[in-house]
Amino acid sequence: MNNKIYFTPGPSELYPTVPQHMQTALQEKIGSISHRSKQFQEIFAHAVAGLRQLLQLPDTYEVLFLASATEVWERAIQNNVRQESFHLVNGSFSDRFFETALELGMKAQKHEVPFGEGFRLQDIAVPETAELVALIQNETSSGACIPVEDINRFREKAGADALLYVDAVSSLPYPAFDFEKVDAVYFSVQKCFGLPAGLGVWLLNKRCIARAEALAESGHVIGSYHSLPSLLSKAKVNQTVETPNVLGIYLLGKVLEDMNSKGVEQIRRETKAKADLLYAYLEQSRTFSPAVKNPAHRSPTTLVANTTVPASEVNKQLAAFDMAIGSGYGKYKESQIRIANFPAHSPQQVEALVAKLRELFG
Amino acid sequence: MNNKIYFTPGPSELYPTVPQHMQTALQEKIGSISHRSKQFQEIFAHAVAGLRQLLQLPDTYEVLFLASATEVWERAIQNNVRQESFHLVNGSFSDRFFETALELGMKAQKHEVPFGEGFRLQDIAVPETAELVALIQNETSSGACIPVEDINRFREKAGADALLYVDAVSSLPYPAFDFEKVDAVYFSVQKCFGLPAGLGVWLLNKRCIARAEALAESGHVIGSYHSLPSLLSKAKVNQTVETPNVLGIYLLGKVLEDMNSKGVEQIRRETKAKADLLYAYLEQSRTFSPAVKNPAHRSPTTLVANTTVPASEVNKQLAAFDMAIGSGYGKYKESQIRIANFPAHSPQQVEALVAKLRELFG
Repeated sequence: MNNKIYFTPGPSELYPTVPQHMQTALQEKIGSISHRSKQFQEIFAHAVAGLRQLLQLPDTYEVLFLASATEVWERAIQNNVRQESFHLVNGSFSDRFFETALELGMKAQKHEVPFGEGFRLQDIAVPETAELVALIQNETSSGACIPVEDINRFREKAGADALLYVDAVSSLPYPAFDFEKVDAVYFSVQKCFGLPAGLGVWLLNKRCIARAEALAESGHVIGSYHSLPSLLSKAKVNQTVETPNVLGIYLLGKVLEDMNSKGVEQIRRETKAKADLLYAYLEQSRTFSPAVKNPAHRSPTTLVANTTVPASEVNKQLAAFDMAIGSGYGKYKESQIRIANFPAHSPQQVEALVAKLRELFG
Repeated sequence: MNNKIYFTPGPSELYPTVPQHMQTALQEKIGSISHRSKQFQEIFAHAVAGLRQLLQLPDTYEVLFLASATEVWERAIQNNVRQESFHLVNGSFSDRFFETALELGMKAQKHEVPFGEGFRLQDIAVPETAELVALIQNETSSGACIPVEDINRFREKAGADALLYVDAVSSLPYPAFDFEKVDAVYFSVQKCFGLPAGLGVWLLNKRCIARAEALAESGHVIGSYHSLPSLLSKAKVNQTVETPNVLGIYLLGKVLEDMNSKGVEQIRRETKAKADLLYAYLEQSRTFSPAVKNPAHRSPTTLVANTTVPASEVNKQLAAFDMAIGSGYGKYKESQIRIANFPAHSPQQVEALVAKLRELFG
């Protein structure tokens, strides 16, 4: 029996109702049903409806299930870019989206600021020719985020044809996006949705679809089974092209039901309160300090702190009390810690973590 | 509580130990562990070792985890074909691999025989220029298969540089392949491995890897995160590029352990005995008859029969006795039935199905 509480930035603690939904799934034999059955269509529709409600997603948006957010990067470039994309980069994941565009043969450009910094809007010049603008709303590696009000100003900064993509992999449902001000938002279920990994979700509007259709019509290769037209042809009948992670879609729908009965406003309030508690501790700690200097750019969901005690030692000491946090990313592995503050983490659990960190490390 | 036994051709009945492994996974919080942790590396290595043992896979082969077998089609074309592939087609899935190659801009050719027929080797001329030859060992839509001894003769029929790909999506571990005689074999876990869907497995040798490297070196775009070099760089350290379906890989390793302690020979013997029982019934039934005429080309794992009673009616009557079979594929939806004979289906369950079909339909 593993009693550890995972404050790792994803995979992370499962939403508390997941084990009971998994029991139901086993009893109902969800793992055996056909992905072409009415029962699956209902599961698919239920998950989509739950997302629409929680995120207040306009009807003009489609919801697509892929295998990971990493896959969304590739499909976005394939389906929405003929030649040129533009990327805000301030950490490892935003840089990988940029690298993905290069690997797929695109002329990708980036506006880069140091790891752990946010962006100053006035410094950013979006090339008029960029077909896709990649905004990293929450950089899981560095803990820097872009406030929603800044995201909302990119439409005026970008060319009229630019599609605005928002990486909210480890922040949704916290940020209350104005979906009319952007064109696509994507996330992974193993972060804030507290689910086992193996599913990426791509929310996108009709401009993204029209672009893919235009590219395909002009002879541009936009992929095969996971091209946008192929994905949409099945999504319209609440199905997927391939046999998908049926269990993952089922669990997502169930957890969304639980989240909706709690209410997104309550989830956001709790997330904010827990983040305030964590940052207040980190600011006064003798061992830790928030890695992102500008408070406006500090992520409420993936908190990163510099540490004078190696991260592995912090985790070693926490393990004795059944707690785990994330180490720093890449070269910051030992010099930073990362703490996930997801809806699955109760206020009591976060309070206990803060108390234990204070006791052990000051 | 759903007590139905699923003889559907995948997703299908779960291997009987899956519920208990899922309980352990929940207790051990496998859904929360990092995909960069030592614990995950052990899970990955355990699944790979289990596959190597069960399939008697030579060391010259690599094992890669993708999201689905459908994804393998796309990655195979991207990484192993510059211009031209050649496909044996006798049903819907083999045709989709062919279509995938076309969608990705390749000059794909096919040797096609009618739905439900197998192939006569002497009729097949493999173009000398084909870089990849797609062999459909088991066509899940039609129930036709290619005997292993015929698979083994394609090396001499194809050009020296051709890579031989074998679709064993719904047959492995039944066919005892000579892996030296082919270059890649792939399957899905929701068929004969009795697992929830959401994982495709790609077995491939060094010739496939060398081809991908050569294509990349010449400036050909071979994809991004799931290009072969990218996949292999992580697989070498028992990791994946993206956060994968961790739970799926865990369950696969556990079921492989169970299958290995039973032994592949015993699994194959049982599969053969159950298939013989089913075909013997179908041949003498008043309602059903095997759809594949040539007994040598009849799949032992996905049995397809013509039916004079509509498939939906057959299933409706079986449902009263907690049994489900597959309907026919596509336009054969009502005129054919499909019966899965996977390792998860016990001899007793198959006997009970035959007895019930005989009682209800003669």
